[in-house]
Amino acid sequence: MNIVYYPLGISIAGIFFSWWLISRVNKEQDGNEQMMEIAHAIREGAKAFLRRQYRTISILAISVAVIIFAVYALTGKMNTGMQTSTAFLFGALCSGIAGFVGMSVAVRANSKVAAAADRQNMNAALKVALRSGAVSGVLVVALSIFGVSALYLLYTSGLSFDARLVPDMIVGFGFGASFVALFAQLGGGIYTKAADVGADLVGKVEAGIPEDDKRNPAVIADLVGDNVGDCAGRGADIFESTAAESIGAMILGAALYPVFGEKGIVIPLMINALGLIGSIIGVMTVRVKSNEDPMKALNRGFYVSLALATVVVFFVTQSFLGDKYLWFFGAGLVGLAMSTVFVWLTQYYTDHKYRPVREIAIASETGPATNIIAGLAVGFENTALPIIAIAAALYGSYWLGNASGIIDGGLFGTAIATMGMLSTAVYILAMDNFGPITDNAGGIVEMSGGSEQTREITDQLDSVGNTTKALTKGYAVGSAALAAFLLFSAYTKVANITVVNLSKVPVFIGAMLGGMLVFLFASLAIRAVGKTAGYIINEVRRQFKEHPGIMQGTEKPDYGKAVDITTRGALRNMIFPGAIAVIVPVATGLIFRAEAAAGFLMVATIVGILMALVMNNAGGAWDNAKKFIESGKFTDSHGVVQGKKTAVHAAAVVGDTVGDPFKDTAGPSLHVLIKLLATLTLVLAPLFM
Amino acid sequence: MNIVYYPLGISIAGIFFSWWLISRVNKEQDGNEQMMEIAHAIREGAKAFLRRQYRTISILAISVAVIIFAVYALTGKMNTGMQTSTAFLFGALCSGIAGFVGMSVAVRANSKVAAAADRQNMNAALKVALRSGAVSGVLVVALSIFGVSALYLLYTSGLSFDARLVPDMIVGFGFGASFVALFAQLGGGIYTKAADVGADLVGKVEAGIPEDDKRNPAVIADLVGDNVGDCAGRGADIFESTAAESIGAMILGAALYPVFGEKGIVIPLMINALGLIGSIIGVMTVRVKSNEDPMKALNRGFYVSLALATVVVFFVTQSFLGDKYLWFFGAGLVGLAMSTVFVWLTQYYTDHKYRPVREIAIASETGPATNIIAGLAVGFENTALPIIAIAAALYGSYWLGNASGIIDGGLFGTAIATMGMLSTAVYILAMDNFGPITDNAGGIVEMSGGSEQTREITDQLDSVGNTTKALTKGYAVGSAALAAFLLFSAYTKVANITVVNLSKVPVFIGAMLGGMLVFLFASLAIRAVGKTAGYIINEVRRQFKEHPGIMQGTEKPDYGKAVDITTRGALRNMIFPGAIAVIVPVATGLIFRAEAAAGFLMVATIVGILMALVMNNAGGAWDNAKKFIESGKFTDSHGVVQGKKTAVHAAAVVGDTVGDPFKDTAGPSLHVLIKLLATLTLVLAPLFM
Repeated sequence: MNIVYYPLGISIAGIFFSWWLISRVNKEQDGNEQMMEIAHAIREGAKAFLRRQYRTISILAISVAVIIFAVYALTGKMNTGMQTSTAFLFGALCSGIAGFVGMSVAVRANSKVAAAADRQNMNAALKVALRSGAVSGVLVVALSIFGVSALYLLYTSGLSFDARLVPDMIVGFGFGASFVALFAQLGGGIYTKAADVGADLVGKVEAGIPEDDKRNPAVIADLVGDNVGDCAGRGADIFESTAAESIGAMILGAALYPVFGEKGIVIPLMINALGLIGSIIGVMTVRVKSNEDPMKALNRGFYVSLALATVVVFFVTQSFLGDKYLWFFGAGLVGLAMSTVFVWLTQYYTDHKYRPVREIAIASETGPATNIIAGLAVGFENTALPIIAIAAALYGSYWLGNASGIIDGGLFGTAIATMGMLSTAVYILAMDNFGPITDNAGGIVEMSGGSEQTREITDQLDSVGNTTKALTKGYAVGSAALAAFLLFSAYTKVANITVVNLSKVPVFIGAMLGGMLVFLFASLAIRAVGKTAGYIINEVRRQFKEHPGIMQGTEKPDYGKAVDITTRGALRNMIFPGAIAVIVPVATGLIFRAEAAAGFLMVATIVGILMALVMNNAGGAWDNAKKFIESGKFTDSHGVVQGKKTAVHAAAVVGDTVGDPFKDTAGPSLHVLIKLLATLTLVLAPLFM
Repeated sequence: MNIVYYPLGISIAGIFFSWWLISRVNKEQDGNEQMMEIAHAIREGAKAFLRRQYRTISILAISVAVIIFAVYALTGKMNTGMQTSTAFLFGALCSGIAGFVGMSVAVRANSKVAAAADRQNMNAALKVALRSGAVSGVLVVALSIFGVSALYLLYTSGLSFDARLVPDMIVGFGFGASFVALFAQLGGGIYTKAADVGADLVGKVEAGIPEDDKRNPAVIADLVGDNVGDCAGRGADIFESTAAESIGAMILGAALYPVFGEKGIVIPLMINALGLIGSIIGVMTVRVKSNEDPMKALNRGFYVSLALATVVVFFVTQSFLGDKYLWFFGAGLVGLAMSTVFVWLTQYYTDHKYRPVREIAIASETGPATNIIAGLAVGFENTALPIIAIAAALYGSYWLGNASGIIDGGLFGTAIATMGMLSTAVYILAMDNFGPITDNAGGIVEMSGGSEQTREITDQLDSVGNTTKALTKGYAVGSAALAAFLLFSAYTKVANITVVNLSKVPVFIGAMLGGMLVFLFASLAIRAVGKTAGYIINEVRRQFKEHPGIMQGTEKPDYGKAVDITTRGALRNMIFPGAIAVIVPVATGLIFRAEAAAGFLMVATIVGILMALVMNNAGGAWDNAKKFIESGKFTDSHGVVQGKKTAVHAAAVVGDTVGDPFKDTAGPSLHVLIKLLATLTLVLAPLFM
């Protein structure tokens, strides 16, 4: 029997498990009538967004599929062209399904979490939220393994059987996934922040009504945003990460075919599949002891998943990689360690318990300007330790792989390290989806006038959700960085180049353009948020002006209109940055050829990682500096407590607002961009040669 | 006769010319008694700062010289070690002299400009300011040519004569210059912005007194800052640019010894020397026609210098490079074009006449947060066109050099392009020094209670000075970028490596660390400003509290104390970022060896250029958006004029304050950093091999 049946079987079981989990979540009690009404509005808005978004993406994806086929056909490789473009569409489709189902569950779960907080207790609410989040986590990873395994099986059973060639054919799957992910993350990220900024600026600042007030016509759009940005967007991000990184590892495994045979090609899928089971167990064990910080319970679950993943890596390397397996198990451990280190570092830079966030809070005393300067200083600084960690992990796993004595073992070591890091992806993703679900639950409780006690529970969960969202972003950057080298190596193999010589003029030019693309893309993403927010601001102003009854509470605002305008604006404004992200590398490859494209890819990756770290963590730190001041625990340099509604708080709010498009639009889109560039260049390599 | 006598002779003539210029400036009328008193205080503060700064830098430089000697001695090259460390100290010394003399003239000229504005007219004031600025410009470039030519002559007349080896020996001169420049720019940049922020926060915000009010104890420190940051700092920057870039070009020329002989090695100095004469003529022709925008007069002078530089490049390539000279003249034209393109692009991104600054002004309507977001979006965006310009210039000059049919001619083409760009350096630097001189003159007029009419002249000159300062920064980044490739090539020759293969793990790690260093350095530089500003704020608060007579105008504040505290703070806080800038590349080279150090250098350069562009131009755009609103010409989206003291203006002030440490500390220090890394790795290459 072909060994790929193992991961295939597990992935199918995973899909069924997520189905079962959906039915469990559906059985949970619904909220009261008011809650349901709000939840219904959110659900409709989110679905409307996704429908339109998918329509736009479908058109783009089909065009790209045709182009891919044409590229290969023109170079005389009809068959490969057919296979690659089919894989591309299949990847795009799976990514779409994963995003859609995950979000559908999330928008049902929010009112159930609210209900559990209302009628039961913290533990019940947390469990519903985490398990609902896990649906998407399990489905995303299972579908990714399923897709790659199924394609592998399909193509190896073809007439011209040679397992070594197969990973190259599947690359299209990863590209499809990245392509959808870029637009999903970008569109969702623009939507969520535009709605947030729009709702705040007109609601809080101009009209003086509190956040999540139901008189604000943009309030539903704001809640919808959490789902389409964090839930659907990040799901697509992790989907393409697992897919692209597995495929990259498989390509390197194919190079070692003489040593490990087919096992070397399939091992990434196997680690992924068994890691999935480990993370499911981790999710199911989480429960909050009475009065405990819910973050502690979530951390326990992460450590369970991590321990199980370690066992998985040991077991799989032992049974797949022969007598040299211990070196590669070591490399896998490096990856697992790296996931933990990134979780710690992200906490250090974004938690108010530590120096960076406190520094920003203190700087807020002297006004918004010093708050911003401090935040940017923290953001720039926070690139140092993660980069050193990545360098250490890369060098360590490479060294271990080489020490095995196998030729090209070093690169394979980095591949196993990447798979080790990804083996806890399901748990991380479940924690991430937890964020928007609890955020929504909090909004629903607030809008439906829930009790003080209920609010306390949802507030606490919401604050934990903010931390877990930051962690996932850190994890995504870390995995992108570790996988980067993997994907470069895959590219140099596919493009048949032996060196990427930066001291050649065209390669150096490619490298400069790669670095520049990251800055330009970030600029366009940020600006798209501003533009889209403008539309909502005008719409909310219009509703307030034309319907004075809204502010008096006698008239219901037209939520649907605000949702619709945000949807159309976000989708329109995602096209240009998305197109730039595809066109610039292709143009570079066409003009300056394959080696310059590699230089482009590598330097874009380095700069992308740096900028993503800056944007995610500066954004998170600003957010938490504000929350720290709001909590009433911050005393200024004169020993006075500075809480809400002080000048210090106002300064911190400025930082938080600046950080919003950083951490929820540009930053997350940048990690998708990095991987899109890698899969894009992989697929189009024949064009550049 | 050795052809190097030509540039040597011209440089000596240049030094005498700057002496003559000083005597001319000294003959200009001094200001009235009140003016002189203030000017005297500024002069004393600036000299005290420079004395201490040079003391600190001397200690550091001597230690480094000893280390360099030890490094070479340990690898058995006593002679080269002696030569390199002597060159290093000579470079450091020349840089120090250039900075000191330039600043001494500037701090004398400020009151003379004030007097000319008071008693004569715009044309007289502008001429005094520009010619005083030119002293430093001429001296900086002349000393750089003198130093390199003298060393060349010294070492070629040695026993082991081989002209090809000489440029390698002189590399130390460039490193010495960069080393001093880094600390001069960093220390000066920290000083100037800390004093500015400190004076504003306590004076304008807390005590509610206007800018440049003499009751503010930090006001003299603020005016001193303009001189030590912009004048001495940028002078050192351009000094090391000309030195390092000439030497890099000479190393490439040495590689072409079989083709061009010694002429290929000396041509960079020749272009530089004759360009010096062209720029002097450009400076001397500048005069303002009645009622004309002074910027127009300055632009005319620039075009005169540019035209003369074109003639110079033609003449020199023709007489030095034989029958293939036209290709290299073409490459030189590319460099000249690039200096013009950078001047335009900087104007586009920082002048209120164009879209970017207007966008920031409009975003200020919705508060400081949107102002900051817009500014950062503009900053990130403004990397695109300059990078494309650099890519085009690099590719164009490389292509032209190759088209000459000479082997390795491509690289030599980029060398000639760089020298072409640098041939207008004197004029640019004269315009740059114009900035702090007119700024000071404005401050003196304000503090001495000058007439409305006088103020109008100095205000207008001050505003032009802001533009010219921005242009110089753009020019410095552009030349750094174009020279970068030159210096890499020199490094690969010296380190004897043929490829810099980014697809090797250690090289990739070096590249990542290089990118990271830029972000870390920027963070530390920004933070140093914040720290130092903290000291001044406390001191000013103390003076106001202990001497209530100061605010009533009955007691004179202790300016000296504020100057002293800022001086010590700035110098203390420059050590750490400066040390990091030296230690990280050396550690990378020692651990991962020569090829990784090259990867480090190249990616640090790319990221450094990107970040310097972001910081300089976002800062400039924020500044000018504020000035645009202050000018009363800005009408908001409802058609209302929003001038000073409106909420829109307050939002724009936040952006301006954030931009200050960007554009005057971190940004300028980054271009010095780029070149320091290049000369540092060149000198220490033997360690990494």
